[in-house]
This record gives sequence, C-alpha cells and structure tokens, in this order.
Amino acid sequence: MGEFDVIERFFKTRFAVDRDDLLLGIGDDCALLNLAPGHQLAVSSDVLVEGVHFFSDVDPQTLGHKCLAVNLSDLAACGAKPKAFTLSLTLPSIDEAWLRAFSDGLYALSKMHACALIGGDTTRGPLNIGITVLGEIPKGQALVRSGAKTGDDLYVSGTLGDARWALLALNGHMPVDKGRLQTLRARLESPTPRVDLGLALRGVASAAIDLSDGLLGDLAHVLKASQKGAQLQVLDMLQSQLVSEDLRTLAPDQALKLMLQGGDDYELLFTAPKSKAQALKALAQELNLPLTVIGQVTENAGIELLHAPSLLDTETLKSLCSYDHFV
Amino acid sequence: MGEFDVIERFFKTRFAVDRDDLLLGIGDDCALLNLAPGHQLAVSSDVLVEGVHFFSDVDPQTLGHKCLAVNLSDLAACGAKPKAFTLSLTLPSIDEAWLRAFSDGLYALSKMHACALIGGDTTRGPLNIGITVLGEIPKGQALVRSGAKTGDDLYVSGTLGDARWALLALNGHMPVDKGRLQTLRARLESPTPRVDLGLALRGVASAAIDLSDGLLGDLAHVLKASQKGAQLQVLDMLQSQLVSEDLRTLAPDQALKLMLQGGDDYELLFTAPKSKAQALKALAQELNLPLTVIGQVTENAGIELLHAPSLLDTETLKSLCSYDHFV
Repeated sequence: MGEFDVIERFFKTRFAVDRDDLLLGIGDDCALLNLAPGHQLAVSSDVLVEGVHFFSDVDPQTLGHKCLAVNLSDLAACGAKPKAFTLSLTLPSIDEAWLRAFSDGLYALSKMHACALIGGDTTRGPLNIGITVLGEIPKGQALVRSGAKTGDDLYVSGTLGDARWALLALNGHMPVDKGRLQTLRARLESPTPRVDLGLALRGVASAAIDLSDGLLGDLAHVLKASQKGAQLQVLDMLQSQLVSEDLRTLAPDQALKLMLQGGDDYELLFTAPKSKAQALKALAQELNLPLTVIGQVTENAGIELLHAPSLLDTETLKSLCSYDHFV
Repeated sequence: MGEFDVIERFFKTRFAVDRDDLLLGIGDDCALLNLAPGHQLAVSSDVLVEGVHFFSDVDPQTLGHKCLAVNLSDLAACGAKPKAFTLSLTLPSIDEAWLRAFSDGLYALSKMHACALIGGDTTRGPLNIGITVLGEIPKGQALVRSGAKTGDDLYVSGTLGDARWALLALNGHMPVDKGRLQTLRARLESPTPRVDLGLALRGVASAAIDLSDGLLGDLAHVLKASQKGAQLQVLDMLQSQLVSEDLRTLAPDQALKLMLQGGDDYELLFTAPKSKAQALKALAQELNLPLTVIGQVTENAGIELLHAPSLLDTETLKSLCSYDHFV
C-alpha cells in the first residue's frame, strides 16, 4: 500500500464533509475555502511526537483524538469556531489496523465539531503527527492573551492536574491505584477541547489561553502579554471544583503541586471583569462545566501564590515555573 | 535554551512582517488573518523528513529554503498568491549554528514572497519540518487539476530531470562530474517555486499541478482528475529547452528517463487551449522561463509516449509509472 492508497482508504473518502465553504479538499495541490463575510481566520499548528508527547504503546484511537483535540483547544482559546484542518502524518510503516483506529479517533472529533480534513501530507519516517487547524471568528471578537486588566478575576475551567498525575504514574514517578489510573489516563490522552466555552467567552473574557504547558507557565504568558501580575488564592483553589475527585484523595500539597505545575490539562484559563461574574456562573451551569475563580489580575508583574509557602516546601516552589519542552 | 527562546531568537522577531492583513502572529494561541474581499483561501501542507526527503548532511540554509519552496510550489500550482505560513519544527537538539542557517534560508524565501511566518510549534524529536502555507486567490480563479480538455496542449516550465540526476548521483547510482554535481544538487536542494508563473496562468491554463513526484506520476493525477488521457511527443521533448545543459551531455535514453521519472523538479505542468499559445509564448519571454509544449490532452484515458519504444527498453518503460513514497 502506497501513500495515495493510505490517503484514499483511511482519510479522503471517510472524512468527506459537506460544508459549503469548502470548495476543494483533499486531492489537489491546495484546498480552497471561503471565509464567512465579516469574519477573520484563526490558524494554529501543533505537533505530537512519539516518545515526547505520547507513549509508543498509546491506543491509536485516543491518539487520533488527541492530536486534533490539542489544536481545537487553541481555537477555543481564541473563541474561534473550528472550520477545517490539514494532517501531516509521518509514519514508520503502513500498519492498517493502527491507521484504522487512528482515523476512527480523529474522525469522531472532527465530525463532532464539523471540522473538515482538507489536505496534508503522508510520508515515511519516525512517527510524527502535525495538524494545522483553521477556524473563523467575527472580526474584532477574538480572545487574545494581551487583554487582561488589573482587578479582573482569573478563571480556570474544569479540573487541573489529573493529566500530570497520569504522566507521572506512567513514568513510575508517582504511585496510583490501577482503577484510578484509567480515569487519569483518559484525562491525559483524551482531553476535551473547550470549544463551546471559547465561543461563549467572546465579549465576556478579557484574555484567554489554553492550558497545555501547566497553569503557572501559561498564566505567565498571559501576564507577560498583558503586562500585568496575578495573585492566586491557593487555599480557595484547593477547596474548589478545580480539584477532581481523584486529586481529592491526595495530600493537599501533592494535589496543589499537580494543579499548579500541570501540563496537558487543555482547560481554558481566562480573565474577566467582576461585572461578568453572574454571566459566567450561568454559563458554567449551561455548559455543565466548572468555571472557578483562582485569583485576580494585579498591576505589578509577578505571580503571588497566597498561602502557598505554608503548603509547599521551598524546593517545590522554586521548581514550579521552570517547565519548557527543551529543558 | 528552551522552546520559547528558540522561537524568540530565531523566528519571532526576525520574521516580523508588516502586512495589514495579519492581525496577530507568533505568540498567541492562534494567528489571526483577514482575507482580501472577493478572495478565497488556498491551503497546503508539506513535510520534509531527514533521511527521506533530505540527506543528514544537507546545508541547513538550503533546507530552510526548500521546506518553504515546496509549499509555495503548491500555491503556484493553484495560482494563489502567498500570504502566510506556519512552521512545525521537530528538532533532535538545539544547535544554534544550524538554527541560524536554517532560519536564514527560510527567511530569504519568505521575504521574497512576502509570505509571513505566523506561528507553529517547536518540539523535540527526530528532525521533521512541517509547513502549512496559506495563499489567496480571487474567487473562482483557482487553477485545479480537473480542468484539462481534449485537444489542450500540455506544457512544462523550466527543465526536467536535473534533481533526479543529483539524487541518483548522491546515492551512488549514477556517475557525475564533481563540478556538474554542484549545479544539479542546487536544483535538488534549492528549487524555485514558480509563484509568478502560477499567478500569470490564472484565466490561461485549464489545469495545473506542480511536479514533485515526477512528470509521469503527476501527469497521471491531472488526467485522472480531468478524466482524460495524453500523448507525449517524446522526440520533441528531447530537442526542447526542457533538457538542461547538464542533461544534454547524457545519451538521449538516459536523459529521457530522468525527465519522465523526475521527482523534486518543482516545475509546473499545465494544460491550455491552443488559442493561448501566443499568450504563453509572450509569458515565457516576460518571465524568462521556458514553457515547453510536451504533448496534447486526449479523450481516451492513458499516457501514450510517442516514439518512446525506439528510445527506451521495455523494463524502463514499465518502471516509469511506479513511484510512490511507500514503495
């Protein structure tokens, strides 16, 4: 089976989507798309590499889900509506069962968001999955990182730290019950991109980012772009819905460390003026998704963890901000 | 040096482009772009993998050029004007000298076409370079593969087969003088995307494709999409400007084989009605680029190589159509 057969069999026919803004999809030199009148294009690219972003024995179906999910999460952080994506698939060999399962996971999420596969590249080499996703958004309504204002509340959706626990457990760095590992691993490998939340935050949030690298690291990006600082109410966080049922079984310092350091959460971190508090409470109910206030935006740079020194040792506090893909 | 330092140092500041249709580039969750009124978006993705698409000792500057060039070539084949691109860079380690040279080559071509780097991903792993390029095109004017009509002339730009000779020579499968290898290798590693030609072919060509996999393979894609066949005037091809000075030094059957099998030519193959012959002659002069008629589109499927059996042995004729990335 060659490159063109792989595309035809696992992707082209299957992913055909009936969207009248797609004029030409897989199978020409370029895909052709129309943009809705009065709209802007949002573009993001993310790559997943074997041994770096996922384990070699990962279920290919969840991998197909995750590689699109992390890209949709970027669209969500901008408040953009998913439109289409390209898939650049580097494969060590043609494994039909693997491709079938991978395509299953990818297709299910793509269909859920009417996000059409419009092209890409399939080639031989060490497993590497690159996706570029396109979304659209009414002009001027995009959520960006730079809009946080002093006094805004800081919000996080869902729960934090579950994916990190799974990663540490799978690497043998943290103990976990077998039953619990299954739910934690699902949080790591099958994140839910908060697309509906992102759309609802247009005109409500002042800034937003998706949590891929961990709460403190990603918060730092928002604060840097906005030229602000933040105070986090660490004790409140520990008593909030931000702590999953699984993390509640841990000692508070362990749970807090996982939540602050995080990584692979794919929740949204956003800021909003206090005047939006009621609207956000209603939105949380409507989406059936916790939206937790974790602190406030401050005028002066830096992140202050209120009460953290009473919970965490100095070494842990120091290490919390150092995550980087190449470190 | 971490991921964010790499982006900042080698890409973000350097590639800043002043285009008023780019509202947000590198450094947020998504890039934001406007599309010109009455225009469509053209999108294409191509990946280059070490050991598959380039040698490990390739000059990183030419690699930076090539990975964007092959993507711009896809835009050219659609008649789209380059607008922006994302770069997904998987690197085994942070080699500053390598990154500087790579970024030099990428930047030079990006600047030449005012094609802005708007985002991407930088991660660790076996060397893999994925680019997704965005172009724009007035609605309804895109060149597609499916438009070839019976009786149209088949054209190819530039020269064919040089890159293939370079590849065979570098792999030790074909002899070459040292001096000659340098020019041939430049054709393999620094292809010129035919962007201006693609723009000029709007309203002139009936179908187009860029030659990445080889003349016969890519011609087959056009014919399949158009439900047509073709006759190639092999003797005329051998006496035309399609044969480079380098290939002229070979026996005719060797030259012909390289030209037909090709690969990595990144010239445009297009079809046009005979009524456009004068306009295309003038265009070739204007662009200072040979545009050679290699045959005609026929009603019945299949590619007929006129006079080829007198030049090539049966084995060679048989092997000409079998190229595929996974074979």
